[in-house]
Amino acid sequence: MMKRHEPTVWGSPEDGPISAGDLTAFGADGFLRLGDLLTPGEVGECLAELQRLNGDPRVRADDRAILEFQADEVRTLFDIHKADGPLGKLARDPRLAGRAQQILGSDVYVHQSRISYRPGFSGKGFYWHSDFEAWHAQDGMPGMRAVGISVALADEYPHNGSLMIMPGSHRTFISCADQTQSGHDGEPLRMLEIRRPDTTSLATLCGESGITQVSGKAGSAVIFDSNCLHGSLDNITPYPRSNVFIVFNSVENTLLEPFAGNSPRPDHIASRDFTPVA
Amino acid sequence: MMKRHEPTVWGSPEDGPISAGDLTAFGADGFLRLGDLLTPGEVGECLAELQRLNGDPRVRADDRAILEFQADEVRTLFDIHKADGPLGKLARDPRLAGRAQQILGSDVYVHQSRISYRPGFSGKGFYWHSDFEAWHAQDGMPGMRAVGISVALADEYPHNGSLMIMPGSHRTFISCADQTQSGHDGEPLRMLEIRRPDTTSLATLCGESGITQVSGKAGSAVIFDSNCLHGSLDNITPYPRSNVFIVFNSVENTLLEPFAGNSPRPDHIASRDFTPVA
Repeated sequence: MMKRHEPTVWGSPEDGPISAGDLTAFGADGFLRLGDLLTPGEVGECLAELQRLNGDPRVRADDRAILEFQADEVRTLFDIHKADGPLGKLARDPRLAGRAQQILGSDVYVHQSRISYRPGFSGKGFYWHSDFEAWHAQDGMPGMRAVGISVALADEYPHNGSLMIMPGSHRTFISCADQTQSGHDGEPLRMLEIRRPDTTSLATLCGESGITQVSGKAGSAVIFDSNCLHGSLDNITPYPRSNVFIVFNSVENTLLEPFAGNSPRPDHIASRDFTPVA
Repeated sequence: MMKRHEPTVWGSPEDGPISAGDLTAFGADGFLRLGDLLTPGEVGECLAELQRLNGDPRVRADDRAILEFQADEVRTLFDIHKADGPLGKLARDPRLAGRAQQILGSDVYVHQSRISYRPGFSGKGFYWHSDFEAWHAQDGMPGMRAVGISVALADEYPHNGSLMIMPGSHRTFISCADQTQSGHDGEPLRMLEIRRPDTTSLATLCGESGITQVSGKAGSAVIFDSNCLHGSLDNITPYPRSNVFIVFNSVENTLLEPFAGNSPRPDHIASRDFTPVA
C-alpha cells in the first residue's frame, strides 16, 4: 500500500457544473452520485439504440461486442463514443464530459467506453479492484488523473448487483499481483483481467469508512476516481442491469508503454487516440 | 404455482409477545423483523461458545459440524438445541419459542437448528428457495405450519450477504425439480440440496412486492414462514457473517415419510424427535 501522490480534484468550482461542496466531497470520498443525470426519454433512446445494435450482424461480428454465452445476444459493446446516435452523443455530453474536465482540470479524451445489458437472473459480480491499478500496469497510464462515469439505464438496487465503493480508498494505491478471473456469464472476459488486491489491504481501507452501495433509478449516475476501490455482486433477482460506462482521461495523462511489460491492449479497451472530447 | 391452503398465522395476539399489528404484518408479508432480540452480552456468549466448540476435537469429528474447506474451522454446527450452555438455552428461549408457538397456534418442537460463522471475504450465497418445498418433499413435513428464526450474531448489511425475502411469496407454493447445488465455501452442502424454483414463477411473485433485504445489528433477528421465498448473495466484504438459525415446527405437523420417495435425511437436518420445547 502506498499513499497517493496526485491530487484527486484538479479543477475548481468555476470550471464546470459541480458545486464547491460536491467537489470537496469528491476529493474526500473519491466518488459523487449524480441523480437524474438523464431523463427517462434519454434512457429509453439509449436502450432502443442498444436493441437496434443487437440486431445488426456487423455489430455482433465485431471484436468490440461481447456476446452472452447462451442467448447469443450482445451483452457488452465497447467504443460507443465512436458510434452515431444517442450513445455517441452521450459520450460527448457536457453533463458527463464537462464534469470530467472540471475534476481533472484539463481537456479530456475517452480512454474506454461501453454499454452493458444483462437481464434478470444473470450477471456475475466483480471482485474489489481499482481501475487505475490495471490501467497503469497494463495500459501505461502514468498517473491518477482519470474518472469513470457509470450511467444507470435500469433501476439499481442494493440487491441486484449495484456498485459497491469503499469511500476514501482512492487515496491509497494497492499494487496487485497479475491474475485473471472469469468475467460475465462465465466466459473469460477478454483482455479485461482483474487484478485482485490482497484482503489485508482491503480490510484496512474498508475499516476507515466502510462500504457505500450506489443504488438509484435509471438515469442516475455516479462519477468516480480511477483509483477508487469498487466491486459488485452477482444478480439473482428478476431485475435487469444495464448501464453506460465512460472513462475520461486527462490529455495531460496520455498512455505510455504498459508498465507491466505486456503488449498494449486493444484500442477499444485502452484507447491511444488522445483527441480531446470537443 | 399453487395457492397456499394453510393459514400463515394460527394463533392470536393474546397467545404471546407478538402484537396484533405485527401478527397481521406477518400474515401479509410472511416475515417479521425482531430488532434487539438479544443483548450484546448474549451475542458475545454465543460467539464465545462457538469458539469453544471450534476448539473441541469431538465437535470437529462430529457429522453435525461442517468444516470450512481450507481453514479447517467449524463453519456450521447443527443440533445446537441439544447443546448445553448458551446455544441450547437460546433454542428454548421464550423470546424465540414463544413467538413460534404464537404464530403456529400450538406447542412447537425444533425441526432443525444450527449456528454458522464465516469470516469476511468468504461465504457463498444461496439461490432463491422456499424451505418448506424441501422439507415437504425430502423430509415429509405435511403442511406449512413451521417458522424459521435467524438471529444475527454479527452486523448484517445489504452488501455482506444479508437475507433477501420476497414479501408475500409464502402464499404461493412453487414445486421444484430435484437438483443439487454446491453449498458454502465450495464444498457440497451435505444433505442440504437446494431445489431451484423456475425464473418465471420467481419473477411473477417478485413482481407483486419486490424484494426486501433484512439487515440489522448483531442481536437482531427475523422470523419467517416456512414457505417464504428467500435467498442471499456472496460476501466479498471484510465483514464476517454469523447467525443462529432455528426452525420450529408445530407438534400438529410432525413429519411423515418423505414425499419425494427418498430415505429420510439425518436427524440433525430434519429431526424426528417431536418432543415439544418446554
